[in-house]
Amino acid sequence: MTNPRHPSFETLFVELGARRYPIHVGAGLLAQHDLLSSLTGDRDVLLVSTPPVAALYQETVLAQAPHARTLLLPDGEEYKTLASAEMIFDALLAHGVGRDGLLLALGGGVIGDLTGFATACYPRGVDFIQLPTTLLAQVDASVGGKTAVNHPRGKNMIGAFHQPRAVLADIATLATLDERNYRAGLAEVIKYGIIRDGTFFAWLEERLDVLLGRDAASLHHAVLQSCRIKAEIVIADERETGIRALLNLGHTFGHAIETAAGYGNWLHGEAVAAGIACATRAAAALDLLPPTDCARIVQLLERAGLPTRIPAALDWPALRKLMQTDKKVQQRKLRLVLPDAIGSARLCDDVPDAILEAAVKHA
Amino acid sequence: MTNPRHPSFETLFVELGARRYPIHVGAGLLAQHDLLSSLTGDRDVLLVSTPPVAALYQETVLAQAPHARTLLLPDGEEYKTLASAEMIFDALLAHGVGRDGLLLALGGGVIGDLTGFATACYPRGVDFIQLPTTLLAQVDASVGGKTAVNHPRGKNMIGAFHQPRAVLADIATLATLDERNYRAGLAEVIKYGIIRDGTFFAWLEERLDVLLGRDAASLHHAVLQSCRIKAEIVIADERETGIRALLNLGHTFGHAIETAAGYGNWLHGEAVAAGIACATRAAAALDLLPPTDCARIVQLLERAGLPTRIPAALDWPALRKLMQTDKKVQQRKLRLVLPDAIGSARLCDDVPDAILEAAVKHA
Repeated sequence: MTNPRHPSFETLFVELGARRYPIHVGAGLLAQHDLLSSLTGDRDVLLVSTPPVAALYQETVLAQAPHARTLLLPDGEEYKTLASAEMIFDALLAHGVGRDGLLLALGGGVIGDLTGFATACYPRGVDFIQLPTTLLAQVDASVGGKTAVNHPRGKNMIGAFHQPRAVLADIATLATLDERNYRAGLAEVIKYGIIRDGTFFAWLEERLDVLLGRDAASLHHAVLQSCRIKAEIVIADERETGIRALLNLGHTFGHAIETAAGYGNWLHGEAVAAGIACATRAAAALDLLPPTDCARIVQLLERAGLPTRIPAALDWPALRKLMQTDKKVQQRKLRLVLPDAIGSARLCDDVPDAILEAAVKHA
Repeated sequence: MTNPRHPSFETLFVELGARRYPIHVGAGLLAQHDLLSSLTGDRDVLLVSTPPVAALYQETVLAQAPHARTLLLPDGEEYKTLASAEMIFDALLAHGVGRDGLLLALGGGVIGDLTGFATACYPRGVDFIQLPTTLLAQVDASVGGKTAVNHPRGKNMIGAFHQPRAVLADIATLATLDERNYRAGLAEVIKYGIIRDGTFFAWLEERLDVLLGRDAASLHHAVLQSCRIKAEIVIADERETGIRALLNLGHTFGHAIETAAGYGNWLHGEAVAAGIACATRAAAALDLLPPTDCARIVQLLERAGLPTRIPAALDWPALRKLMQTDKKVQQRKLRLVLPDAIGSARLCDDVPDAILEAAVKHA
């Protein structure tokens, strides 16, 4: 199990026909020579990362892909912009990387989303592999092919669907993740339990303390289970014409919080946690969700050290207006994901504003 | 036939399953109320154009879509950039246009490519309609879903496949097109004859003088026949994994010329004409194409007033290097489209550099 040359890992497949790809989950994957090198081969490779992540893992990755060029981008949500995507285009053209090149996205969700978007557009589509090094990227951003950059007026408003060729979620990298980012990643893990799997939610309630201690076996299970749920939903609805929208639980509130607070001030997972709490309270107020389930959800988020309230400094009318730019808005009507049980959620497009305001302002 | 309320027009369909769309070709289409207004309905509409085109046709279009907002962008290939795409994103977000909005691209290939690219990315795909007002845009850029912006190091290097919902090619708009742009559009018309349809090529040889006089019936036939050939090829190979590459005859040379000369100095059609002449001479030098066919192609381009030579000021080594950034390059090998008859072309990836240089330097 712990032989460093053959670490234990498990593989799921995102079954999308010609675009089918594996998600490998395990400790030590980045260092496993025959895994990454078999994917890179002798192709032109550009490794995209940030300085702090590169300091930890660049050497390991380059040992598997010695011919790769490296591009380091500034770290943080506030740099997930068209300007950063342009730096990737510049590097690709400077190095003469062609349509048959390959990019490696080594880092958190920002690097994955940026590299994914750039590879969707260069030149109308080039391959990339996700090497996520944060919990949030491993359980969410790296899987499913949604790529994007932010606009000052709205998060992820400029993007493309572009699936990676493979995802290598090396859970050993989570050992070096700072506490705040680690907890932010748990928000998306908890989300999967709420929208799709009551058993997994109950497991999280039971195992949260060991998970907060980063117990390897528990982490392995949490990442694998999250990826499994996300892959199932993406296979069923790649382009988000239906069920995939449920993955956005907490995100309409969350994106508005991130935009209003200024990108980078709230971590994505923190904003999603507060958003999940707001959606949950709204669902309870509408009698969609029993009060006991509402309490269990809010309590689990709180135990994970995640925010369940929006700071008073954020003005409700401004937040409401930002929610209106959400991508799920149709014919100017806000469409929200609300939980209707632990393990189930639905889309609602007629939630009264007073209910939303009360859910947000909840003392 | 000339009733202004019901002008004669013909419709082709680009048969792409769920993304099937019509190409309407005829004189007076923009003014035909029931055509455009049935497509816009009560959706949020953003009309994207340039000041000179808007001065001529904005009023006509707004009469069919009175609730549309307008965004005018600077005119010219040198503005087909990410920065211009960003102006479209800004306008969409400022006006709160949602996923169910609709954009109208009114203008030449630059406006069509820019609007197409922006709608591919906002927010991961919104509808747009092509209202091409140049010959080049009507016969080429508006059909087929290739969208892109330029990079200083390479033309069309940042882009996406995103099909329009409809194309309205109003050939009455060609009456106001300046002579240089009109002739540049003929380069793509001639290209269709060379790669796919010897009968159409012979028709062009016979009708070129009336076509240069902008005879309406001849123009109608030329635009319709060009769109028909392009649609056939796009239906067969939407993502350019095979036959669609033949549409790039002259474009590997042409894009290098445009980039080397500085965007906007050579019109796209002019650069393509010179590129077709180079490819044709290379094909003759390789004994792929009979010398008489080579002479017919070069002569037709010359009769259309199009360049068939690259100016001596453009340095061959620099041009050759730019050709290497072409999107068709695979494993660092240049892949060229060469005609092998009037009405037929093939991909060649082993053309000796000496042949290319001689074709370019041909006195």
